[in-house]
Amino acid sequence: MNVRRLKFWGWGYADEALDPDEVARVVARVTERLGVAGLEPVPEPRIEDLTLAPPRLSPPDSLAGICSIETYDRAAHTYGKSYADYARTLARDFSPAPDVVAFPATESDVVDLLDWADGAGAAVIPFGAGSSVVGGTEPAVGDGYGGTISMDLRRLDQVLEVDKTSRAARIQAGALGPGLEAQLKPHGLTLRHFPQSYEFSTLGGWIATRSGGHFATLYTHIDDFVESLRVVTPAGTLESRRLPGSGAGPSPDRLFIGSEGILGVITEAWMRLQDRPTFRAAASVLFDDFYEAAEAVRAVSQAGLYPSNCRLIDANEAAMTQAGDGSAHLVVLAFESADHPVEPWMARALECCADHGGRADDTGHLGGAAGAWRNAFLRAPFYRSALIRRGLIQDTFETAITWDRFPDFHATLMETAADAVRRVTGREGRVSCRFTHTYPDGPAPYFTFHGVGRKDALLEQWRDIKQAVSETLISLGGTITHHHAVGRAHRPWYDKQRPDLFAEVLIAAKKRLDPNGLLNPGVLVDPER
Amino acid sequence: MNVRRLKFWGWGYADEALDPDEVARVVARVTERLGVAGLEPVPEPRIEDLTLAPPRLSPPDSLAGICSIETYDRAAHTYGKSYADYARTLARDFSPAPDVVAFPATESDVVDLLDWADGAGAAVIPFGAGSSVVGGTEPAVGDGYGGTISMDLRRLDQVLEVDKTSRAARIQAGALGPGLEAQLKPHGLTLRHFPQSYEFSTLGGWIATRSGGHFATLYTHIDDFVESLRVVTPAGTLESRRLPGSGAGPSPDRLFIGSEGILGVITEAWMRLQDRPTFRAAASVLFDDFYEAAEAVRAVSQAGLYPSNCRLIDANEAAMTQAGDGSAHLVVLAFESADHPVEPWMARALECCADHGGRADDTGHLGGAAGAWRNAFLRAPFYRSALIRRGLIQDTFETAITWDRFPDFHATLMETAADAVRRVTGREGRVSCRFTHTYPDGPAPYFTFHGVGRKDALLEQWRDIKQAVSETLISLGGTITHHHAVGRAHRPWYDKQRPDLFAEVLIAAKKRLDPNGLLNPGVLVDPER
Repeated sequence: MNVRRLKFWGWGYADEALDPDEVARVVARVTERLGVAGLEPVPEPRIEDLTLAPPRLSPPDSLAGICSIETYDRAAHTYGKSYADYARTLARDFSPAPDVVAFPATESDVVDLLDWADGAGAAVIPFGAGSSVVGGTEPAVGDGYGGTISMDLRRLDQVLEVDKTSRAARIQAGALGPGLEAQLKPHGLTLRHFPQSYEFSTLGGWIATRSGGHFATLYTHIDDFVESLRVVTPAGTLESRRLPGSGAGPSPDRLFIGSEGILGVITEAWMRLQDRPTFRAAASVLFDDFYEAAEAVRAVSQAGLYPSNCRLIDANEAAMTQAGDGSAHLVVLAFESADHPVEPWMARALECCADHGGRADDTGHLGGAAGAWRNAFLRAPFYRSALIRRGLIQDTFETAITWDRFPDFHATLMETAADAVRRVTGREGRVSCRFTHTYPDGPAPYFTFHGVGRKDALLEQWRDIKQAVSETLISLGGTITHHHAVGRAHRPWYDKQRPDLFAEVLIAAKKRLDPNGLLNPGVLVDPER
Repeated sequence: MNVRRLKFWGWGYADEALDPDEVARVVARVTERLGVAGLEPVPEPRIEDLTLAPPRLSPPDSLAGICSIETYDRAAHTYGKSYADYARTLARDFSPAPDVVAFPATESDVVDLLDWADGAGAAVIPFGAGSSVVGGTEPAVGDGYGGTISMDLRRLDQVLEVDKTSRAARIQAGALGPGLEAQLKPHGLTLRHFPQSYEFSTLGGWIATRSGGHFATLYTHIDDFVESLRVVTPAGTLESRRLPGSGAGPSPDRLFIGSEGILGVITEAWMRLQDRPTFRAAASVLFDDFYEAAEAVRAVSQAGLYPSNCRLIDANEAAMTQAGDGSAHLVVLAFESADHPVEPWMARALECCADHGGRADDTGHLGGAAGAWRNAFLRAPFYRSALIRRGLIQDTFETAITWDRFPDFHATLMETAADAVRRVTGREGRVSCRFTHTYPDGPAPYFTFHGVGRKDALLEQWRDIKQAVSETLISLGGTITHHHAVGRAHRPWYDKQRPDLFAEVLIAAKKRLDPNGLLNPGVLVDPER
């Protein structure tokens, strides 16, 4: 189908092997910190070992050429990349597998596939590159459908038009990060949106899930980069106007941004771009007290400096990612510009840190801390399958909260997570925190937990921990997701978070655009059918 | 009703007289540029001359204390502040007057008023301070209602809670600009949202209409300041969570931001605030060529400098507002910060201007240009009633467009407006342009036209011009409004602009929240009732 095959489980392409030495080093680092050794991996699942239920759907001849019922394709479109997905993969449970995987090459293929699905009573799950960690692309649609079609959009991968004057481009929704950047590079432009999943996620997926980029402040969210959208729905196709700003009614784009595939299939978007940065400054600052470090980040966030990086990494997480030696909390600062030297900005940000007891990082990590951290950040998803095969529980949860509530919120969540890991696994685990994004009114804290699980109960153990931390963060006023999306995994807490009447409005919108409820059933809302 | 009375027509408070010398100077300046003299004003309309239809509604005893059927109140809630409103006022046409004006003092008053309206089959028009220039608060609801209630929210004017740590406050929707700033000032905080209507518009009105503030870039739109909302709808009350950022589904807030009173009555909001600026730099730069000046503004906008002011004012408009002598186009630049000196930012912005042929303003306006312009900007709304009484047509229209299309778009609109004024009035008028806001991907151009009208045909003449420029800007890809909102006046062009399916979704949302169609009928969409 001329898309490069992804691993059917784990991170990366099917033809990319992970360096065994790299894996060994990571496993050693994690197990050492957890005080265990000699964990042996269970065997890796193989496609040839899987038995999927026979497909319930058979594409019409006109669509057969863009559809697959191969076991590999069905298996590779069953799960995303969450801990729960990996646990079920290791249990060889592929019961949610789609009946058919479709690879539309044109927008009219998308229309035709929706028409076929409608006639067949099938559910359609829009699929970018499957990096969801919240079950957003899992064909678990409940009863009442004649089958499921995973619609993989990666063949729609072109930058169709570049407007260098306005710095914008019309890009198809199935373009992966590296592919779209490669097409923009000759124009000297960049989308500059680098989520951790960048290599294995698509523009359409970013828009549908309100993706957060790597940068800590200002222009980092995909929401702000969307200039206009084109969306195919079962009720027809709609396209918003290319405008730099508008006050004409509620924003049509904002309804589809974050709609997670329940209202339509995003096929293309005009995206705001940036010039490629040439001026850079980076520094890291050490703090003995975590909350003082948070105050420094708050000061920088409220100063109107807009660093590209302003990331607080607690001592535990610094050690785990080799960005520090574990003796201090770390604030990684960076400024970037395509236009002007950024030293005055950095100088002021460093003053804010010094005001709160920060000291220059002279542990040997100076300059290297950010690089070490960034490398660890990009490689981390590759390691998760190796860790879980050894019975290690490792997951993250992320949220956002206003500054006034942050210290209590953070302390309670750290304790809740540590307690849950201890209770569930019977021994101490590790919990750490960093900020992924910071705003003038609050941070987006991102928590990581590790524990030594039981290979025969990985899913149940994880669920118990996930339940505990999710309940706590929702009851304390956080959001169930800052940038991982809701999907199927976060539904119970999303339902507590969003106003009931807003859910009713979403249902009404869905009824109008997708009257037969074909699109991504189970995600965000449950309209009656 | 313990709200200070506004003029029932024209700008300002009823107890504020305009200085006759100031008016004479402005009239002289405009008429001189139009080449006319000796225009005598028609008599000012007086409340005692008006005869309104008898009210069709009678509030129940429980609500009688917060309702008024006085002629003054009904007249003052009939129109906004548009040219068409003034023309109809001069014609003594108050046919759209509301039957009742209600002044809720609590959120439960709002609920009770909606209940009463529902029972009485009355339409309800949420009203802030009536500064709409698009008929957004005009009780022109068509047939099929038992009457109309203008719901004036100005008694809900309190800052209820201040969170200094996160820099946010919970503010009631009826607070006027000066009132809310006065309540924030003791905390050292500011909303820093200064639309031209600042004195005579409310927080709720700003949110409902996607108000644009005075500042040219970055944090200026009310959209970005909303942290959470509380909205009373006929179907119940909803409140979103206070969060600095969230990726949990489409943003509930963004559905109500710009909803212009058709989905519910915004009663309060948590708003993101800023520290009060202490560092400032201002400069003005002259250009011989308008499009070179626009290129300079584009360069500044794309440089990531985020000036508080970056306003291109063409030579005609500079002369009209006394910001210049009419010999050159003007770019007014300013930077502000509560945190750090802004000279490095200004220095780079000035380089961008010099790169495009800009020269320092040494005409004597240096430093003073921005101040002169700002003063003219704030006073302008006061003069409009004086000009129209003399038979002068004076209005503005505003839009946004991407940079690639800007030069043709601007040239065509300038010509369209000039042609229309000439055709309609039989003589040359004046058309000028400035940028109110600039974005990396395009400017928000704001056009002003003046012409010598006929006192007996002011409304028809204006409509003809408005029609011509609106058709042109929509056909060229602009937005019918960048920050004035849609209301009733912009509906024909909004209907061409928004995707049809999005209108269907808005109707579905309205059906769910306002099933009997009580709220602001005729605005944005027309659901069947």
